Amino acid sequence: MTTAEPSGPRAASRIRQSAREVLAERGYADLTVEAVAAKAGVGKSTIYRWWPNREALLADALAEIFKGDEIPDLGDTQAELRLAVDMTIDNYADADLAIAVPALAADLARSPELLASFRETFLLRKRDNIAVALRRGIDRGDLPAALDTGLVQDLWAGTILYRRLLSGSPLDDQLAERLVRLVFDASATLSS
Amino acid sequence: MTTAEPSGPRAASRIRQSAREVLAERGYADLTVEAVAAKAGVGKSTIYRWWPNREALLADALAEIFKGDEIPDLGDTQAELRLAVDMTIDNYADADLAIAVPALAADLARSPELLASFRETFLLRKRDNIAVALRRGIDRGDLPAALDTGLVQDLWAGTILYRRLLSGSPLDDQLAERLVRLVFDASATLSS
Repeated sequence: MTTAEPSGPRAASRIRQSAREVLAERGYADLTVEAVAAKAGVGKSTIYRWWPNREALLADALAEIFKGDEIPDLGDTQAELRLAVDMTIDNYADADLAIAVPALAADLARSPELLASFRETFLLRKRDNIAVALRRGIDRGDLPAALDTGLVQDLWAGTILYRRLLSGSPLDDQLAERLVRLVFDASATLSS
Repeated sequence: MTTAEPSGPRAASRIRQSAREVLAERGYADLTVEAVAAKAGVGKSTIYRWWPNREALLADALAEIFKGDEIPDLGDTQAELRLAVDMTIDNYADADLAIAVPALAADLARSPELLASFRETFLLRKRDNIAVALRRGIDRGDLPAALDTGLVQDLWAGTILYRRLLSGSPLDDQLAERLVRLVFDASATLSS
């Protein structure tokens, strides 16, 4: 290759970075493949070689910065649940993610297929890893065997995202602590 | 007036209706003032006479169908809380609202002024009315005096919206019942 246009994984990474920059500068509505191509210094066709549309590109660009790591086994259920809540807060405290995740989900809601692939790219790794930590709490006898781990995560992520986007209340230590204690207080109600 | 173009409150109502129809047919990203004007059979200038931009028009059009009525005094805190949760589920079970509210909030997040006015148009009446019901529960001694009524509503609306938009889990009777019981189970944790 002697052309100036980059190719391969390095270019893909630069394109994802550019997508995040365009999002931050112009917002979701003005995020076009054209604008990302210009920012990354590549042709639109380079982008379409890897991603079928702007939604797929953006989902991929955001998945790269969305935290969903394994929760370490600390031998302490409460401490592990706090790590899980903090990770969720970190994700939605990030301005790009807080704005783009719901906008993208709203945009994809009209296409069940794209929405399913977005959930997989985006949410499943985090949710699976948090479920593993919740199940360790069950194994230790700290939480009921029938705990609905999906509902716990809907409560946590929902409250955090809603505060960030709609009610405007803070995502602080007090909130994190309450979201953890809630699960112990209402563990029977949160079980099936 | 002898022109065909309608004016006054009747036209405003037709324009709001058209905005909701364009939203349902084409999605948030393609909702333009031009498209709404064409659908309503009015000129763009008629729309701009009442609303400064598409965000203000859409917020107004959705506020018209967003449920936020007073919760009647049933003399039964649990039953009143259930009405509040059901009202919130009704709002986000509506496809237009579930898609448009977060998309609009995400779009406005870059403008604190517009976002504040959106919250006022949209959320405050519902939140105030639900807070009145929660305070009746406090007065009856069913809930602690220091209950954080804002947090309760962030939990309810957040969980419902997140399920609708992101996790895809159902908004059913079981969820409504759990969201109500949660508040009693964790009433100390949800107090300041």
